Amino acid sequence: MLKVYLSGEIHTDWRERIIEGARDLDVRFSAPVTDHAASDDCGVKILGAEEKPFWHDRKGAGINAIRTRTAIEAADVVVVRFGEKYRQWNAAFDAGYAAALGKSLIVLHGPEHQHALKEVDAAAQAVAETPEQVVQILRYVLTGALPG
Amino acid sequence: MLKVYLSGEIHTDWRERIIEGARDLDVRFSAPVTDHAASDDCGVKILGAEEKPFWHDRKGAGINAIRTRTAIEAADVVVVRFGEKYRQWNAAFDAGYAAALGKSLIVLHGPEHQHALKEVDAAAQAVAETPEQVVQILRYVLTGALPG
Amino acid sequence: MLKVYLSGEIHTDWRERIIEGARDLDVRFSAPVTDHAASDDCGVKILGAEEKPFWHDRKGAGINAIRTRTAIEAADVVVVRFGEKYRQWNAAFDAGYAAALGKSLIVLHGPEHQHALKEVDAAAQAVAETPEQVVQILRYVLTGALPG
Amino acid sequence: MLKVYLSGEIHTDWRERIIEGARDLDVRFSAPVTDHAASDDCGVKILGAEEKPFWHDRKGAGINAIRTRTAIEAADVVVVRFGEKYRQWNAAFDAGYAAALGKSLIVLHGPEHQHALKEVDAAAQAVAETPEQVVQILRYVLTGALPG
Amino acid sequence: MLKVYLSGEIHTDWRERIIEGARDLDVRFSAPVTDHAASDDCGVKILGAEEKPFWHDRKGAGINAIRTRTAIEAADVVVVRFGEKYRQWNAAFDAGYAAALGKSLIVLHGPEHQHALKEVDAAAQAVAETPEQVVQILRYVLTGALPG
Amino acid sequence: MLKVYLSGEIHTDWRERIIEGARDLDVRFSAPVTDHAASDDCGVKILGAEEKPFWHDRKGAGINAIRTRTAIEAADVVVVRFGEKYRQWNAAFDAGYAAALGKSLIVLHGPEHQHALKEVDAAAQAVAETPEQVVQILRYVLTGALPG
Amino acid sequence: MLKVYLSGEIHTDWRERIIEGARDLDVRFSAPVTDHAASDDCGVKILGAEEKPFWHDRKGAGINAIRTRTAIEAADVVVVRFGEKYRQWNAAFDAGYAAALGKSLIVLHGPEHQHALKEVDAAAQAVAETPEQVVQILRYVLTGALPG
Amino acid sequence: MLKVYLSGEIHTDWRERIIEGARDLDVRFSAPVTDHAASDDCGVKILGAEEKPFWHDRKGAGINAIRTRTAIEAADVVVVRFGEKYRQWNAAFDAGYAAALGKSLIVLHGPEHQHALKEVDAAAQAVAETPEQVVQILRYVLTGALPG
Repeated sequence: MLKVYLSGEIHTDWRERIIEGARDLDVRFSAPVTDHAASDDCGVKILGAEEKPFWHDRKGAGINAIRTRTAIEAADVVVVRFGEKYRQWNAAFDAGYAAALGKSLIVLHGPEHQHALKEVDAAAQAVAETPEQVVQILRYVLTGALPG
Repeated sequence: MLKVYLSGEIHTDWRERIIEGARDLDVRFSAPVTDHAASDDCGVKILGAEEKPFWHDRKGAGINAIRTRTAIEAADVVVVRFGEKYRQWNAAFDAGYAAALGKSLIVLHGPEHQHALKEVDAAAQAVAETPEQVVQILRYVLTGALPG
Repeated sequence: MLKVYLSGEIHTDWRERIIEGARDLDVRFSAPVTDHAASDDCGVKILGAEEKPFWHDRKGAGINAIRTRTAIEAADVVVVRFGEKYRQWNAAFDAGYAAALGKSLIVLHGPEHQHALKEVDAAAQAVAETPEQVVQILRYVLTGALPG
Repeated sequence: MLKVYLSGEIHTDWRERIIEGARDLDVRFSAPVTDHAASDDCGVKILGAEEKPFWHDRKGAGINAIRTRTAIEAADVVVVRFGEKYRQWNAAFDAGYAAALGKSLIVLHGPEHQHALKEVDAAAQAVAETPEQVVQILRYVLTGALPG
Repeated sequence: MLKVYLSGEIHTDWRERIIEGARDLDVRFSAPVTDHAASDDCGVKILGAEEKPFWHDRKGAGINAIRTRTAIEAADVVVVRFGEKYRQWNAAFDAGYAAALGKSLIVLHGPEHQHALKEVDAAAQAVAETPEQVVQILRYVLTGALPG
Repeated sequence: MLKVYLSGEIHTDWRERIIEGARDLDVRFSAPVTDHAASDDCGVKILGAEEKPFWHDRKGAGINAIRTRTAIEAADVVVVRFGEKYRQWNAAFDAGYAAALGKSLIVLHGPEHQHALKEVDAAAQAVAETPEQVVQILRYVLTGALPG
Repeated sequence: MLKVYLSGEIHTDWRERIIEGARDLDVRFSAPVTDHAASDDCGVKILGAEEKPFWHDRKGAGINAIRTRTAIEAADVVVVRFGEKYRQWNAAFDAGYAAALGKSLIVLHGPEHQHALKEVDAAAQAVAETPEQVVQILRYVLTGALPG
Repeated sequence: MLKVYLSGEIHTDWRERIIEGARDLDVRFSAPVTDHAASDDCGVKILGAEEKPFWHDRKGAGINAIRTRTAIEAADVVVVRFGEKYRQWNAAFDAGYAAALGKSLIVLHGPEHQHALKEVDAAAQAVAETPEQVVQILRYVLTGALPG
C-alpha cells in the first residue's frame, strides 16, 4: 500500500482526477483541507478572533500545519501541484519539507512554470504535466503496468 | 487515524471531556497513568521499598517513563494541559520532549498562565483554553469541519 | 559563532545590508550564487549544452543544489527573503527544507505578502520586514543587546 | 572541550558560580539571555509593538528560541536549574527538549522540589543541590579529579 | 499494544514466566533463537562449514543478528536478563544497542551482579530481580494496575 | 512478519525460487519492476519521449526510484543478487543504500564474484550462493528451524 | 570549506587531476587507500593470514571500511568515478551509501557507461565526463565562477 | 584527524601502548576515567553518600556516563578491550551503543574469549589480539602504510 499526499493548488479538480484514476490501486491518499474559507478561518473560528490579519492567519496556519505535517511525514510519495492562481508558496514549502525528509516527490505543473520551478523539479523523482500522468506513475510503481 | 497523547494535569476531567467530544472521530488517545497514588508508588510497590523519598520517586518515575515515552514517540499530536495545582514540571518536560521530536503540540491552559508559558506556547501549533477547543481542532484536522 | 544562510531574492541589496550591519558580530554568512545568469547557466556551461530548456535548467539546478543544501545543512539560522519579482518558489522550497531539518527560520517580507506567506511564517521563529530587523535579531541572539 | 548549556532560573548567581568555579577547565558555556526585561521585550522592541500580551510574548519567545535551541543542540551537557521564583516551565521544557536529543542532563535544585521534579530528575545523569557540585561533576568528567 | 524484546540468558525459564504472566496483556513478545546448538551452528549449517572456530562463529552471529537487530529496532521495551552461566556479553551488547536507539530498557538480574552491571542499570528505566516484577511493570505500564 | 526486498539481477528465476521456498513463512516480499523493457521505458512512456538516451534513462530511473526507495526503506532485510549479465551497478547501489540505513543485508552471488564483491559482502550479515540458502536463512530467522 | 570524498576507480590519475585543479580552492579531499596491493592485503598483513580468499578479503574490507565510512560520513560532496577496469561494485556501493546519507553526489564516467549507471546518475546532483568538469563544479559551488 | 575512544578493561597498559604507538599519527584519543576507585566513588564523593550499594553505584554510573557517552558520540572509531578480570559488561554495553550509532568498531581480545564475544566481533570492522595490531590498523587507516 502506498501513502500519497496531494499538496498544492486547491481550485481545480486535479485531486479528484488522480483519486478517481487510481481507484483500483492500493493507494491511500491524504490532502490538506481544500475548503479555502475553512482553511483561512479555522484558527479564529476555533480559538477566537484576532484584529490583525497577521495573527488571524497565524492561528489558522498553525492548525492546518497539524494536518499537513502529520500527513507528509506519514506519506511515501508527495505530489505537489502548481497552478495558475495565487503564489502557492505553501506548495513549494511542502515540497522542500518533503524533500528534506527524503520522501519521493512528484511535481505537477504546466510548461509555463518550468523555469520558475527548476529547483523544485530537480529535487523530484518525476515532473508531470497532467493528473493522468501522475496516475500512470502510481500504477506503474505499484503494478509495473505501463499505459497503452 | 490520529494518535493523540494527553499529557499534564490529572485532577480535573479535561481528558474525559476531550475523549467524549472526539468520540465519533478516528482518534486513538493515550495518556499517563492518572491515578495519582499509583503513579507515585508504582516503583516501590513493584521493585521494593526505599527509605529516601528521592529514590522512592526515582523508581516510580522510571517505570512511568516507559509508558509516557513510548506513547509520546508513537503520537502524532501531543496535547499538554497546565492547570492550577502543583508545579507540573513534568507537563512542561513532556512538551519539550515532544517538540524536540517534531510532534505537533497543542497547549491547553487558562489566560492566567499565558506569560509563564510563553516559551511552551511558542513551540506549539495551537494554544487552547478549553478542552472543547481541542476537540474542535481535532475535528477540523481530521474532517475539515468547523464549529457552528 | 552563528552560521546564517541567506536564501531567496537576488535582485535587491538585502544581503549586503544584513552582512554590513552584522559586521561586528560573530556570524558566518553563506548564500546561493546570486549572479542570475551564472546561476541559470552553470549546468550547461560546465556539463554541456541542452536543447530543451527543461534539461538546461535541470543541470543548473543540480549544481546549485550542491551549494545550497550543503549551506542550509551547516546553518544554525536560515533567513528567507521574499520580494516583488519572480515567483520565488525556490525560496519557499528552502524554507520548507530548513524547517524540516529543525533549523531556526527568519522570514523577511513586506506586509503585502503576509497572507500568501502564512504557512511559511507560521514555521518561522521570527517574521521581519526589513534587513535591519534581521540584524537586530542576530545581534540580540548573540549578545543580548536590544536596539536603542 | 565540553560544551555546557546553563538553562533555567535567572535571578540568582548560580551561573556565575559555575563559570567561576570551572575557569581552569576546558569548558565552553552558553546560556539564554538572562536580562529579564530584555528577554521579555525583545520581540516587540525589534519587530514592533503588540496590544495583546499573548502576541507580545510570542514574538519574544520566538526570538529567544533561536538562541536557546541553537545552544542546546550544540551542547554536550545541559544543566537545568530550578529555583524558588516563578513557575519556570521553560526550564522544564528545555530539560525535556535536551533529553529527547540525547544530551547529558544535570538538574540543579534544592530538596524542597525533589518530588515535583521526579520525572525530570529521572531523565538526568546527575541531580545536584549546589553549583559547586556541578563544577565538581564537570571537573571529574573532564579530568578524573575528585574533590578533596 | 506493547512490543517487548526479551534479550539475554537462555538457560532458565524466565522468558516463559514473563510470557505466561503477561498472557492477558496486549503485549507482543520477541526473542532471539534460544536453542543453544541451533544458535551456535546456524551459520555453518546453512552457508557451509568452516575450519576455524572464529569464522564458524562469525557466520552464525551474522545470521542471528538479522533476527535480533530487527526485533530490537521494532521493540518499544527491551528486557535484558543476566544470569549465572556464561559471560553474556551479547546481552550487554544488546542493552547498549537498545539504549543508543532510545528504547525503554528493563534489566533483570540478581543482587550478586549489582556492582558489575551498574553502567547497564544506570541506562535502564527499571531494574528487576524476578520475572514476576517484569510482568508487574508491563501490567502497570499498560493498564495502570499495581500488584495486590 | 518480515519485510524482505529482493534487489538485483532480473534475468534468472532466483526471486521465484525464494518466494516459492518461503511460501509457508510470514514474509512479505517486494522487488523492483523486473520487466526489463518496462523498467527501461517507463519514463518516456508516461512523461514523453526524449531524444538523448541520457534523459530517456533519467526519466525512467526517477520513476523506478519511487518504487525501489520506498520498498528498501520499508524493508527489514534486503537481499541483493549479483549475476553474470550486465554490470549491475544498481544492485551495488541498493546494497550501499540499504547498509547506510542500517538494514540487514544478505548478498547472493557465485564464488567467481567473491573478490569483486568484498566490500559489499563485508557490509552484509550473510553471503549466500543459492536462493535456497536465502530461504533457509529466512526460515531460521523467523522460526529457529535449521535445514535437515 | 568543502569536504570532498573521491571514491572509485584507482588505476588512472583522475584524483590527481581534480586535486591539482582545485588547488586554489577551499576544499579538503579524502580518498580510499589507492595502493591496490595494500588495500587487498591490509587485513591479513595486520591481523594474520587466512587460507580462504573469502576471509582474506573480509579482513581487508573491514579495515578499509573504517577509512571509507568515516570519510564519506564527514564529506559534504562525494565524487564517484567509474572507469573501464574491474566491476567497481564498491564504487556503486559508496554512491548508494552516500545517497542514503543525503550527501551531494557527483558521478564521473564516460558516455559508454551511461545506460548501466542510470540509477546511480539519477541519484546524483551532477554527472561529469572529465575530472576537469568536476573541478569546474567545485569552483562554481565555492566561488560562483564559471569556466572561460 | 581521527577521534578514537578506548573503552573497556582498565587494569593493564593496553591504552598506553596504543597511545604511545600512535604518537606520530593524527589521532585524538579519549577514554573513560581509568582510576578504578575514583570511577566507583565519584557519585557519592560529589553528590553525597548512599547506604545502599545500588544507589551508590547509580550515582557514580550517571556521572561516568556523561563522560563516556559524550566521547563515544564524538568518536569516529571505538576500540573495545576485553581482558581477564571482571565481567566487563560495561565494555560490551559500550560496543553495542557504538554499533547502534554506526561508529567503526575494533574489538581487542585474546583467542580464549572468541566464542563468548562472537556477537560483538560480528558487529566490528576488525578484531585484534594485541594493542600493536590496533596501532597498525590506525596507521593504515590514516596513512595507507602497512607493517613491515
